[in-house]
Amino acid sequence: MYIPQYYKNENVKEVRQFIQDNGFGILVSQVNGKPWATHIPLELDVDSADKDILVGHISKANPQWTEFAAQPEVLCIFNGAHGYISSSWYKQEEVPTWNYIAVHVYGEIEILSEEEVLQSMQKLVDNHEKGSKHPVSLDDFSPKTLRQVRGVVGFKITITDI
Amino acid sequence: MYIPQYYKNENVKEVRQFIQDNGFGILVSQVNGKPWATHIPLELDVDSADKDILVGHISKANPQWTEFAAQPEVLCIFNGAHGYISSSWYKQEEVPTWNYIAVHVYGEIEILSEEEVLQSMQKLVDNHEKGSKHPVSLDDFSPKTLRQVRGVVGFKITITDI
Repeated sequence: MYIPQYYKNENVKEVRQFIQDNGFGILVSQVNGKPWATHIPLELDVDSADKDILVGHISKANPQWTEFAAQPEVLCIFNGAHGYISSSWYKQEEVPTWNYIAVHVYGEIEILSEEEVLQSMQKLVDNHEKGSKHPVSLDDFSPKTLRQVRGVVGFKITITDI
Repeated sequence: MYIPQYYKNENVKEVRQFIQDNGFGILVSQVNGKPWATHIPLELDVDSADKDILVGHISKANPQWTEFAAQPEVLCIFNGAHGYISSSWYKQEEVPTWNYIAVHVYGEIEILSEEEVLQSMQKLVDNHEKGSKHPVSLDDFSPKTLRQVRGVVGFKITITDI
């Protein structure tokens, strides 16, 4: 991502908060030599070695995961508010522009075990149900519903650059 | 983009309208063998041969354009509304999910001449100033301001797949 110096936010705490507040991201990698993107919730977490990671899962029917092992370097895009800035809003002559906030995260992707995926889903659901009137938990689900986990591929991305 | 059959929108008119309504997109290509993304307005248009194209421009300081000639196949992502769907909203047992609308466009990118960039900016500005109380036009700008066009690289993307 190209960022002019005066638009950079070097405040890591704010950047982390932005990712948590805008966690519905885009996972970008290569499939058959072409860029491929999937829109998914990505949870910021730390692994057992206290390294920053992003955790998520995609459908097994999505071919993107088949190339994770061969090309583990992926990009995650997080989008925030954006809007057209009209020249007519300025007192002086200015070209129009578009204001936006975005965070790009690079990392090494690695597929998780079924057990690890279930654990990550538990966290994901708890996180998003926090604001619900009647929050549900993975513990409430029947074994039949939980077997749906077999239809996804879970992964963790060890962050190398933000 | 992986799309389960029942979520596909095959209505080309609606897809085109979505791109026009959500034209602040993400241009994805490769830089130094890694995925690289830039957030920019992309205008749907047709070229002189009546082929569908996307037109846009990025800063000359953004290294992304330096690899357009070597790797012209790019992905453009357009995002729409999205939201977490809680299990607690269903009568029956359901896993939570995330609803979203997105359009992915693949195409061959080609750099435009300075004159073509100015023409495309004229269209872009006219389009976005339509709703302004006091719409500005590129014609209103001084030669000095218009020289800022030299700071950007304009491009057109001939659409190969949506």
